[in-house]
Amino acid sequence: MSEELRHSDAEELQAHLAEVQELLARHRLVEGLVHRQEMPRHELVEDLVHKQHLQQLHARLDKMHPADIAYVLEALPPQERLIVWDLVRAERDGEILLEVSDAVRESLIETMAPAELKAAAESLDADELADLAPDLPQAVIEDVFRSLPAEEREQLRAAMSYPEDSVGSIMDFDLVTVREDVTLEVVLRYLRRFDELPDHTDQLFVVDREAQLKGVLPLNVLLVNDPETEVGAVMLTDCVELQPDDFAEEAAKAFERYDLVSAPVVDPERRLIGRVTVDAVVDLIREEAENEQLAQAGLREEEDIFAPVIDSVKNRWAWLAINLITAFVASRVIGAFEGSIEKLVALAALMPIVAGIGGNSGNQTITMIVRAIAMGQVQPDALNRLLRKELGVAMINGLLWGGLLGVVSWWLYDSVSLGLVMTSAMTLNLLLAATAGVAIPILRLRLGGDPAIGGSVMITALTDSGGFLIFLGLATLFLI
Amino acid sequence: MSEELRHSDAEELQAHLAEVQELLARHRLVEGLVHRQEMPRHELVEDLVHKQHLQQLHARLDKMHPADIAYVLEALPPQERLIVWDLVRAERDGEILLEVSDAVRESLIETMAPAELKAAAESLDADELADLAPDLPQAVIEDVFRSLPAEEREQLRAAMSYPEDSVGSIMDFDLVTVREDVTLEVVLRYLRRFDELPDHTDQLFVVDREAQLKGVLPLNVLLVNDPETEVGAVMLTDCVELQPDDFAEEAAKAFERYDLVSAPVVDPERRLIGRVTVDAVVDLIREEAENEQLAQAGLREEEDIFAPVIDSVKNRWAWLAINLITAFVASRVIGAFEGSIEKLVALAALMPIVAGIGGNSGNQTITMIVRAIAMGQVQPDALNRLLRKELGVAMINGLLWGGLLGVVSWWLYDSVSLGLVMTSAMTLNLLLAATAGVAIPILRLRLGGDPAIGGSVMITALTDSGGFLIFLGLATLFLI
Repeated sequence: MSEELRHSDAEELQAHLAEVQELLARHRLVEGLVHRQEMPRHELVEDLVHKQHLQQLHARLDKMHPADIAYVLEALPPQERLIVWDLVRAERDGEILLEVSDAVRESLIETMAPAELKAAAESLDADELADLAPDLPQAVIEDVFRSLPAEEREQLRAAMSYPEDSVGSIMDFDLVTVREDVTLEVVLRYLRRFDELPDHTDQLFVVDREAQLKGVLPLNVLLVNDPETEVGAVMLTDCVELQPDDFAEEAAKAFERYDLVSAPVVDPERRLIGRVTVDAVVDLIREEAENEQLAQAGLREEEDIFAPVIDSVKNRWAWLAINLITAFVASRVIGAFEGSIEKLVALAALMPIVAGIGGNSGNQTITMIVRAIAMGQVQPDALNRLLRKELGVAMINGLLWGGLLGVVSWWLYDSVSLGLVMTSAMTLNLLLAATAGVAIPILRLRLGGDPAIGGSVMITALTDSGGFLIFLGLATLFLI
Repeated sequence: MSEELRHSDAEELQAHLAEVQELLARHRLVEGLVHRQEMPRHELVEDLVHKQHLQQLHARLDKMHPADIAYVLEALPPQERLIVWDLVRAERDGEILLEVSDAVRESLIETMAPAELKAAAESLDADELADLAPDLPQAVIEDVFRSLPAEEREQLRAAMSYPEDSVGSIMDFDLVTVREDVTLEVVLRYLRRFDELPDHTDQLFVVDREAQLKGVLPLNVLLVNDPETEVGAVMLTDCVELQPDDFAEEAAKAFERYDLVSAPVVDPERRLIGRVTVDAVVDLIREEAENEQLAQAGLREEEDIFAPVIDSVKNRWAWLAINLITAFVASRVIGAFEGSIEKLVALAALMPIVAGIGGNSGNQTITMIVRAIAMGQVQPDALNRLLRKELGVAMINGLLWGGLLGVVSWWLYDSVSLGLVMTSAMTLNLLLAATAGVAIPILRLRLGGDPAIGGSVMITALTDSGGFLIFLGLATLFLI
């Protein structure tokens, strides 16, 4: 399939998109004329022109790779997206649905009839189908399920049973297996009976009669050795073996560490049940990075930028609510010191600086620790060592920046003691930020949670309220 | 090489690390006894025990994969890291240096003599050497350079000449090329003359006498076709071709889109000069994601968590300085309204809420837009459409959350007009955040910059100062 389809580099891809948009614009122009009654529908000549643009578009799309069509669909606003989607040949619907983002996928599936969805689903392998299944209507899934051959049905059942972050969820079933006791010559002849090998076949899996994995035969080994050699003599027995319940992220790390292209997945009895390939790993790594970015800004999921306003509000409200609550708490801390502020209004102007630097510095610490944990650099017993170091950094920054701002405050408000309070408050808030920045992720780790989640909100909440409390408290004690 | 070495899954890796730490602890115990004079150095028996631990450690390390040794080195504090490093067999130094993070690499290289470094460098391929070169002393590089065979010297020169984010910087030179006019049988016989094929050989490159790329012959095609067929008849001519000056990130996207394992790199005359493999792409994607995370917290580079405090201060100071400046500006905005705050001190308590929600909401918008731009969903002319949508979201959030906080302020301070000012200020600041969240990345894109850099700082600075200005300004106009 992919042989007939053009692969495009970034520029060509942009050119494709521009071309599609151009054709759509011409189409829209004619549509617009018809709509505004400036041209009666029955004017056949124009009608032909109109059709011609769509036909050109159709021809263009037919030659494009599914991934490129997905790219074009993503870039188009809803109405035009649907025009293009209708023009894509039905047998490619499944592949394209796999490539688009979740948000766009939903918008496309909404417009499809059950029969179309069924046809699209049936064009996919069991592992691909499992990825698509959560977005399909229940009735369609059941229908597809019934129409599958027994083996694929079993595979689909298996693939759908694994949780989203497990190896099982990214594994596929396209395997070529060989026996240990045949010669490479036999293997070569066996392979010639295939029309094509599964994508990403960099190794064959050596199994016995019970489907137990005995080793792997990399194509590179197959190709450089004497055809008279037996598989068992040259196969590798120490390969990475994954289990379907392993975390997908761990598998990804193994792929990175050992530069793998594929790895077998075995059950607890070491029976081969599938494999993971590097393309799934690449997608996983990219997705995780993106989810982290989204999570950091409090976006619950990817947003289709053309989606209605109300969808965006729903996607974003939870984060804003959490932040409003923490801001409200900080506001009440200030409220408790209104008497002091009334007497010395300079406090109101200086307090956001104390809170702000604590938040920034705490976020630096937590990012560094979370990353070090993810890379395996931090053992749970490293708390003391890390804390000592971060407190050192905080102390230096506090004296440095706090000292600078203390001098500035002194100069602005002509009060040495206000300057001293400023310096002390900034230093103390930096120490608080450092402590929290180390403690929050390490405690998460010890309690068995994901150290990356929500740390930034917690630390900002703490350094905001804490910063106001420290600064206004010190000021009340020493200045008022 | 990799055949003899154990591949480990995550648990085994942790076990390795624990074992190394255990052996180091025993070693340290004996060292400690000697040091504290509780045991004289010449007590030979103990000395042997001492050596024995190191020997065990040595044996353990010898069996580990370079990537796993790198992992262990990362996890150890400096002193113990150096003990392990000294025990690693010299001929593996080069490979391991490639695997560790920049910060740890520096700490290891510092301890090595020029001769050791030269030996380590010489064990590497030209493309690997190019990666390592920036960290090596100039004298060592020159020495290595002189000792290389002419072809490799040329490759090294080429590899080092490409900028860090280009395809040239991630390409390697391990190619197997074949001619168009030979049969597959000849190719198969040719491959058998290799001891092993280069890693990630999923396809052979078909070139003519001038080294011009004619097509690629995937191993899968080689294996399923009749050996009598000619290469030219089955090779693929439409493959992704990269140029060394292309952005590495664009190449990575092509690998993702088309699920590639390797891709040829050609010069403008279409002469084959190297290839990019998926393992380099995986590393690139992971690195970029990490750099983005670091950049978001204002960490300039990866930190070795065991590095001295002063290194951390240096790594983090710039960001803190920038944030202090923006906080100072915001503080001066508040300073301008000190008169109003003195009269109505509630303003001091409420103003951080207005500033905070603007920052959060603006960051959501900017994250979403930057992501959409990166995915190619945003054309530069989409400004109006996006702006309208984001303003809609901001308006709803403003009326919703602003309304809520308005009621709360009214209730807290028993003033309807204060509540109304609160609601209006929050809505206006959200509209400001939405405008900036769309405008900043889109303007960056139009001006040809990277829309991802620094947007978050800019928007937070804007919504902080803007929020204070709007809230205190409205309050001064209507309440004072």
